[in-house]
Amino acid sequence: MTKYLFEKIVDLSHSLENDMPVYPGDTRTLLEPTSTIPKDGLNLTKVIMSSHAGTHVDSPSHFVEKGLTIDQIPARKFAGEAVVIDASSTPIGSAVNIDSLHLGTAYNKVEIGEDDFVLFYTGSSELWGNPIVEKKYTFLSEALVKKLVKNRVRAVGIDSFSVDSFDSITFPVHKELLSNGPFIIESLANPLKQFLGKRIFLICPPLKLASKDGAPCRCLAVPIIE
Amino acid sequence: MTKYLFEKIVDLSHSLENDMPVYPGDTRTLLEPTSTIPKDGLNLTKVIMSSHAGTHVDSPSHFVEKGLTIDQIPARKFAGEAVVIDASSTPIGSAVNIDSLHLGTAYNKVEIGEDDFVLFYTGSSELWGNPIVEKKYTFLSEALVKKLVKNRVRAVGIDSFSVDSFDSITFPVHKELLSNGPFIIESLANPLKQFLGKRIFLICPPLKLASKDGAPCRCLAVPIIE
Repeated sequence: MTKYLFEKIVDLSHSLENDMPVYPGDTRTLLEPTSTIPKDGLNLTKVIMSSHAGTHVDSPSHFVEKGLTIDQIPARKFAGEAVVIDASSTPIGSAVNIDSLHLGTAYNKVEIGEDDFVLFYTGSSELWGNPIVEKKYTFLSEALVKKLVKNRVRAVGIDSFSVDSFDSITFPVHKELLSNGPFIIESLANPLKQFLGKRIFLICPPLKLASKDGAPCRCLAVPIIE
Repeated sequence: MTKYLFEKIVDLSHSLENDMPVYPGDTRTLLEPTSTIPKDGLNLTKVIMSSHAGTHVDSPSHFVEKGLTIDQIPARKFAGEAVVIDASSTPIGSAVNIDSLHLGTAYNKVEIGEDDFVLFYTGSSELWGNPIVEKKYTFLSEALVKKLVKNRVRAVGIDSFSVDSFDSITFPVHKELLSNGPFIIESLANPLKQFLGKRIFLICPPLKLASKDGAPCRCLAVPIIE
């Protein structure tokens, strides 16, 4: 019988903090005390950030006119089983190819089912904060995501800034996914590595930003024993 | 056998939006487009909010010097079983008393176990956005939370702005909880009502705001069948 080990949850989220990495040009994160215990008796903070800061979910309306906004995706979609694909043989800064789904190695032998999350570990997350991956992170190929759309997956996740190349002008990978149903999780943190080739139960509920294009989320991996 | 119905998840979170209710004096929420599809080809948003905006978690460091910050609470603590207490017989604006735990009615017959979440439905959430509950929301009594601390509960939640009275200067309820272990969830939304007197599986992972006093969360109720 399948069992979810909630007591062994692993955090897949980056911390949100001042001077954290953000996608070049996007709003910088700023956490500013507005009350402190010595002065006011309690701590309070003002948060300024992008809707795509840190580990976050892209909703269809990020790229699709009249696409679902982040608060319109049914809440139940943010908890479900995920397959973790080892794409770390792809050189950092290039596209993960369709081959990553059937390498025939010890990894990646898990079947991808309809309505699964599919999460790609590229290794870009090992360099979080390193200028090398600011613009030259690993992304996904169009052929790969077309196959995932055909398989009717629920969502696609990656441990780098974006599913599209930084050099892309047309954002074909975002558009292929978001216009066909799957939502996207970006900037997963490197503890994802411990689940390569495995199935996990994923919890990734984003903030409920009314009518918006995406939102930061706390993303948690629940190990599964079969 | 106990079963969690993830496919029937109910959202217990308020939307984050401009002009939403915030605790009087706290940072107002502002969602501002920084890119739009017609002009830039994609939608992006700048978010300004309090660490205690909408449905959120208070960490010990909100009131306790050197208490755990929100990113220091182990991630596994944000998923677990919860008991939902019907406290709606308490007049709006007054304190929920210790009696709420053993009314002997059809409701509130669920046992509270060690490490459970305990969530109070006061009815204040039915008036979300109504000036009546801006300062006169229902809160918790000191005697009640002392009992919960003694029972070693994991966390205490409420569907109003605060576990303390707005008129409180010393915040005894926050301090009793946060200095003894349990964290706090505030501003739960009114769909909590459908679980009165029941046990649910709660998912409430807050944003991972580095070294901070609390954070907004997306809070989800998973129905349980025994």
